[in-house]
Amino acid sequence: MNEIKIFSPATVANVSCGFDVMGFCLDTVGDEMVIRKVDKKGIVITKVEGFDLPLETELNVAGVSAIAMYNAIEVDFGFEIEIYKNIKPGSGIGSSAASAVGSVFGMNELLGRPFNKTQLTEFAIKGEALASKCEHADNLAPALFGGFTLVKSVSPLQVLEIPTPEDLYATIIHPQIEIKTSESRAVLPKEVKLSNAIEQWANLGSLVHALHTSDYDLIKSALKDVIIEPHRSKLIPLFNEAKSSAIDAGALGCGISGSGPSIFSLSKGLDVANNVKANFENVYADLVIDYDIHISKINTKGVKIIG
Amino acid sequence: MNEIKIFSPATVANVSCGFDVMGFCLDTVGDEMVIRKVDKKGIVITKVEGFDLPLETELNVAGVSAIAMYNAIEVDFGFEIEIYKNIKPGSGIGSSAASAVGSVFGMNELLGRPFNKTQLTEFAIKGEALASKCEHADNLAPALFGGFTLVKSVSPLQVLEIPTPEDLYATIIHPQIEIKTSESRAVLPKEVKLSNAIEQWANLGSLVHALHTSDYDLIKSALKDVIIEPHRSKLIPLFNEAKSSAIDAGALGCGISGSGPSIFSLSKGLDVANNVKANFENVYADLVIDYDIHISKINTKGVKIIG
Repeated sequence: MNEIKIFSPATVANVSCGFDVMGFCLDTVGDEMVIRKVDKKGIVITKVEGFDLPLETELNVAGVSAIAMYNAIEVDFGFEIEIYKNIKPGSGIGSSAASAVGSVFGMNELLGRPFNKTQLTEFAIKGEALASKCEHADNLAPALFGGFTLVKSVSPLQVLEIPTPEDLYATIIHPQIEIKTSESRAVLPKEVKLSNAIEQWANLGSLVHALHTSDYDLIKSALKDVIIEPHRSKLIPLFNEAKSSAIDAGALGCGISGSGPSIFSLSKGLDVANNVKANFENVYADLVIDYDIHISKINTKGVKIIG
Repeated sequence: MNEIKIFSPATVANVSCGFDVMGFCLDTVGDEMVIRKVDKKGIVITKVEGFDLPLETELNVAGVSAIAMYNAIEVDFGFEIEIYKNIKPGSGIGSSAASAVGSVFGMNELLGRPFNKTQLTEFAIKGEALASKCEHADNLAPALFGGFTLVKSVSPLQVLEIPTPEDLYATIIHPQIEIKTSESRAVLPKEVKLSNAIEQWANLGSLVHALHTSDYDLIKSALKDVIIEPHRSKLIPLFNEAKSSAIDAGALGCGISGSGPSIFSLSKGLDVANNVKANFENVYADLVIDYDIHISKINTKGVKIIG
């Protein structure tokens, strides 16, 4: 096998109470990439379609993670990468993570899988760092492992695979505004009240338990963020209205996807997820900003071969 | 049945990363209580042995929780309570919780179990509040439910039963010094660094996952407290030495039990728990303070009838 086509999924990081550690994987949104073994040594990005991203290997997230992996192997051949992006950079659903994951996953497959998923995450972290200026894995882990993941620590990297209840669907709306990374970082508090921190870890512990036991009521009562959302939600127009509309539609919870501006909602069953979509659309109908909207079952497989 | 004898167990609250929410139940340390149906209406405490605690119903933790429950039923008889305390008040292993739980559990049994465990916890909270001046359930929940519990919230009360890995043993040392509740509260920070809070909830989420999957290595790496222990450990002589000695003996983790002064350690297997005991004894051998030391399997049943 000298060439492979893969689907590298979008992901939702943070998941309300799980700021900086939790994430889950989407099924219906993602990039496609072709990875090809070629005679010439090194990594070359031959095509980027969909969005205007650099072809220079060292300036492209997929290229940087590919180089990190390539430097860890000894081969007398190289790789070409074609990128067909569907996930808009800066949307808050793991666009850079999908790129970073896709290249190393594809190369690993062509090499006969010398690396495990944790090792692939380590390589992908290098690519992700190019986009986000820091090493984190809360989008990479769900893209590679699928389902819900908890990144216990980045150094050393420790990714936990949390079970995914069967009937869980996400609705994601991406209001197409730009939030600068610097701005979304600047609003984060350096210190938080101990009482809020306790509430947050009670909720995260409960969410992990709820995912293990498929307890949808508990998922609903655990999906709260008393630390970050009060600050970051101010950067997203109509966030509170969107959240209320999701809950009104019967959603289990609703929060900021990554650092925004996308908003995620989780529902039990496709019907509720569709109702959330309709309510989201109503909320944003009168606004002069465009939006994308997606519904997806939780993707328990992660990045995969499609050709 | 007009009279029963019960065993009301000691418990460990907080459990390192689970400050204010997690707890687990012990098997080999606990109070015994006799609860008796009598013709005269009301609650009377007829005997307290072991430690010098008030016989007046309204001043005794077991009495106050019993009254809370008695006020919720309509009967033409009353209850007598005898208390044989083995858990020293102020030791940090749930002495007041054992009293508060024992009376309502025993009464509920004699009444034919009209209340479930969550309702019993609600009554017991009233007794616990007499001792600790605030309503909390992190010792009550494991005493009533057994095993590991996570108190998601007190109001409304929501107790989660987290699975207990088969081979888990606790070693507890109680250095017999007095830490005033006011002092152990005063050292708590009002605000904490966001980065520390994130580390703490990553660890708590991991601990819950580890208990679900019986992953002892993960239990070991999750049992850390970066928020409370650095402050409260200063109040406990030789805490750091004791903790190091437990880890040296192969323990999975070691931390402050409740608000101290007891120190708990968790181990995989009885042999390691015994080695921890020996190391604890070495650490405290040269000190002129007395100590009690206990080894216990995790008690997955909680409070129980013994006669």
